[in-house]
Amino acid sequence: MEGNLNNDPAGVEGCAVPVRVKKKAKADSSVIDVSGIPVGTGALTIIAGPCAVESYEQLLETAKAVKNAGGVILRGGAFKPRSSPYNFQGLGEAGIKMLADVSKQTGLPFVTEVMDTRMVEFVAGYADMLQVGSRNMHNYPLLIEVGKTRKPVLLKRGMMATIEEFLLSAEYILNQGNENVVLCERGIRTFETTTRNTLDLSAVPMLKHLTHLPVIVDPSHGTGHRWMVPSMAKASVAAGADGLIMEIHYKPEEALCDGHQSLSPDEFSLLMTDLKKVAKAIGRDLL
Amino acid sequence: MEGNLNNDPAGVEGCAVPVRVKKKAKADSSVIDVSGIPVGTGALTIIAGPCAVESYEQLLETAKAVKNAGGVILRGGAFKPRSSPYNFQGLGEAGIKMLADVSKQTGLPFVTEVMDTRMVEFVAGYADMLQVGSRNMHNYPLLIEVGKTRKPVLLKRGMMATIEEFLLSAEYILNQGNENVVLCERGIRTFETTTRNTLDLSAVPMLKHLTHLPVIVDPSHGTGHRWMVPSMAKASVAAGADGLIMEIHYKPEEALCDGHQSLSPDEFSLLMTDLKKVAKAIGRDLL
Amino acid sequence: MEGNLNNDPAGVEGCAVPVRVKKKAKADSSVIDVSGIPVGTGALTIIAGPCAVESYEQLLETAKAVKNAGGVILRGGAFKPRSSPYNFQGLGEAGIKMLADVSKQTGLPFVTEVMDTRMVEFVAGYADMLQVGSRNMHNYPLLIEVGKTRKPVLLKRGMMATIEEFLLSAEYILNQGNENVVLCERGIRTFETTTRNTLDLSAVPMLKHLTHLPVIVDPSHGTGHRWMVPSMAKASVAAGADGLIMEIHYKPEEALCDGHQSLSPDEFSLLMTDLKKVAKAIGRDLL
Amino acid sequence: MEGNLNNDPAGVEGCAVPVRVKKKAKADSSVIDVSGIPVGTGALTIIAGPCAVESYEQLLETAKAVKNAGGVILRGGAFKPRSSPYNFQGLGEAGIKMLADVSKQTGLPFVTEVMDTRMVEFVAGYADMLQVGSRNMHNYPLLIEVGKTRKPVLLKRGMMATIEEFLLSAEYILNQGNENVVLCERGIRTFETTTRNTLDLSAVPMLKHLTHLPVIVDPSHGTGHRWMVPSMAKASVAAGADGLIMEIHYKPEEALCDGHQSLSPDEFSLLMTDLKKVAKAIGRDLL
Repeated sequence: MEGNLNNDPAGVEGCAVPVRVKKKAKADSSVIDVSGIPVGTGALTIIAGPCAVESYEQLLETAKAVKNAGGVILRGGAFKPRSSPYNFQGLGEAGIKMLADVSKQTGLPFVTEVMDTRMVEFVAGYADMLQVGSRNMHNYPLLIEVGKTRKPVLLKRGMMATIEEFLLSAEYILNQGNENVVLCERGIRTFETTTRNTLDLSAVPMLKHLTHLPVIVDPSHGTGHRWMVPSMAKASVAAGADGLIMEIHYKPEEALCDGHQSLSPDEFSLLMTDLKKVAKAIGRDLL
Repeated sequence: MEGNLNNDPAGVEGCAVPVRVKKKAKADSSVIDVSGIPVGTGALTIIAGPCAVESYEQLLETAKAVKNAGGVILRGGAFKPRSSPYNFQGLGEAGIKMLADVSKQTGLPFVTEVMDTRMVEFVAGYADMLQVGSRNMHNYPLLIEVGKTRKPVLLKRGMMATIEEFLLSAEYILNQGNENVVLCERGIRTFETTTRNTLDLSAVPMLKHLTHLPVIVDPSHGTGHRWMVPSMAKASVAAGADGLIMEIHYKPEEALCDGHQSLSPDEFSLLMTDLKKVAKAIGRDLL
Repeated sequence: MEGNLNNDPAGVEGCAVPVRVKKKAKADSSVIDVSGIPVGTGALTIIAGPCAVESYEQLLETAKAVKNAGGVILRGGAFKPRSSPYNFQGLGEAGIKMLADVSKQTGLPFVTEVMDTRMVEFVAGYADMLQVGSRNMHNYPLLIEVGKTRKPVLLKRGMMATIEEFLLSAEYILNQGNENVVLCERGIRTFETTTRNTLDLSAVPMLKHLTHLPVIVDPSHGTGHRWMVPSMAKASVAAGADGLIMEIHYKPEEALCDGHQSLSPDEFSLLMTDLKKVAKAIGRDLL
Repeated sequence: MEGNLNNDPAGVEGCAVPVRVKKKAKADSSVIDVSGIPVGTGALTIIAGPCAVESYEQLLETAKAVKNAGGVILRGGAFKPRSSPYNFQGLGEAGIKMLADVSKQTGLPFVTEVMDTRMVEFVAGYADMLQVGSRNMHNYPLLIEVGKTRKPVLLKRGMMATIEEFLLSAEYILNQGNENVVLCERGIRTFETTTRNTLDLSAVPMLKHLTHLPVIVDPSHGTGHRWMVPSMAKASVAAGADGLIMEIHYKPEEALCDGHQSLSPDEFSLLMTDLKKVAKAIGRDLL
């Protein structure tokens, strides 16, 4: 590693942690404010919503279910990065506006993905938090552009990114003056094929050890199976995550994407009860 | 896949589960008896002890610490598979006899690794449970040999073994008539280098979904860092593991191997209290 | 895989090849024209130049060396995707203009990377071929934008992209009407650490089997070691690649990036002689 | 790494090369004698034969085809390591005796796999070269046992083994006094699924750089596709391998295992002609 990096002997061998994301002391941890909802206080922040915005009804009904069960931030994709050009690509700008509407109606701030430097200003005009997805963790012009806003950024780990590269990508954002970054472990690519990705929960204590930034987990993309989400969500809380982001759909079987990994409102509600118990067992709570 | 394999549509796409390890119904789960200590009842079985047997004093003091804190099975290596021929290879037969002595003194049954088909009979004459380590998960003559005994077998996942291969290796043992197999997730090899391996906790719900065999986790080898063990042990319990196997050393800083990932007696004792809380939060308990 | 994909039984199990990149018959192969230099005719196209444009002198001297040794396209980065925000990021627009100047002086067409949708029009105004780098293989807005130009595109495989994802990313470009795509294997990320990446040469025959697009190899990034480049370049030719892209620097020991994997002019010249022999041994030649 | 290892600054960063396998000078390279057939002289040693011995007729006819085309060592498995206990496990001792018979008839020395420490003496009584397979590269008691013989050993890289671990496993054998070790790259496990493994050809120049031991390649297991074998065999030669080991079957469509990756006699014969040309292009030849 070249440049302005400190390799703290109190860190981890072989991982240079850049200066702005680096933890300065054991208790050093940042709290990120998402339009009034904090991430990183110790109480867990639960983010939920559909993979993609499909229609006003779908979004509103799902958002109500999220709120009823105790979710505090709404997620939903309007610009969708899809491996195939022939798959549903999202509703685009219309989807962003639906998210803003439903957010106002329900009182839930929302996070949504931005994939193109040209769209950052537009999306930042509506969203409470900008997501940089896994496929764009190495997209440095995009990191710089979201770094120029002062919006909170949800930065997902690239499916092929080391912990060191993940922290360097966060550093790109902080280096532009935007310190409102939340890191998200969402599974890495390995040889194993029974799960969509391999959820690397050890990244939670590792990142909490190295950086002051909050760390959340996405057990939906991490596993790719609806029935695995509750186990891995509970495990994420026990591992010390500051929050979770999960896919919920009011009718999972009709979802245009990722229905197989989306919880129904009832499943989500049940899970929230269980998560509260696990949080309390480790001396924490849900927000 | 050739041969006598059923691919259950209620299983997981792309994974053929062999007949003897395959779960027959949702509630189908085996309990393995290790000289009176059950694995798989719902209550968690905690296995702990040193990486390697180094001396009688080291083993006895560590075993007492394990017992005092609530551990129910002792672990300890006498035959050590080491990457380098110049590393400490274990005390061999003398180590096995020390384990048997300390086991008698403390009342803790013990599990120890066997690496060579020629040693199975000897080790099985002393040990309460035989461990087949990660590096030998694909050693079929060894699997057949431990399958011919009726001793419980702790089968560790190969560091680059798929879930399907892991189940096929268990099938080798059951196919010899020995149904007393406990599976152990201990981390897989990925591109990430800050941890020794990547602990694949999603393997826990996946294996519980596919097989009736109990599943435990080794957070010591899975992470390679002592300070990560508590987080990942709690996460393993929350994910639904039937038990844990952990490295404890009465003086970690003096350990001949793996001291950096071994807990001290005090750390282990503290962790046991925390594990009990997490277990209760998900409606379970420690044994 | 959803949508408009054909899974040819004459293809490869488990890999759906999208329609526009799909090979229609055994002899079906496209030739891409890069300002008069063809890629895919059977004769090998050698692309070479510095990792990054550093100065006019460095670029001109290196380009002359490339030409003298028989290279037919110049490479050079002006916009550099760097893991750390504190590393040299390239000369930007000034670098693009230097490339255009040196290209005119030497008569070598040039290929250079574009990372940002906002810069595609500018770069396409100068470059003979646009490179989409490994880190942007999943950057769909960028793929669409280069697809809207009619410039040849050098698409590098993502460092953890499957063959299927690689082909789907190419399909994004063709789907916009730009059929001038050359695929480049440049190494994938694995657990092995002695090399920068693991150069997957089996991707060459696999891609030639599945798609009509030309396939070239980058042995410089694929290995990360100057002394390995000749062996792997020769192996790439023997494996059936349609060309090579290599890093050459007139003074490797003074390079601002990737000097350790750049050949000197003399090493490159020597290698070209050897490559010609290997090409002839398999019934081909260099351009 | 502990112990008796030298990390040569002329080696590769991050890889400690153990003393007995370590290259002492640029020209330092061992020649291994396999009952009169050398490996490592510069001229390439071609080893070929069926995946498994199935019958006397199959073995004899295949061996004749190997010899006619210029192969100099016969391969064939009698003890087969199979992922599933329900797959064909080989003919065992009877297979070893068939190999010895056919070897005598054709004059081709033979190499065959040994998987069990208890069988080393028996197999060494017949075979000209002992193979330690990929799944047993970490089987240290087996390495020690073959190290106690003076038979040449063909050591295959574990599918999950780093270059450093591969060299350490070879060191186990040399450390017992048996210096007759040939290393074999046969593909590593990655995320890619269109090939059976990812053949890591960069291992060839890397190993030749670090060790004096000869290095050969197995393009049959490395790819898992018959139609890819010729390309990757030629690439292996161009990369600098000291030989090849390939699966040939007199009737591939009837093979009991690995028929899809076995060449027919005609395909093998054609390939040998091509390999000779590539070898000459790099200043070498076939034996």
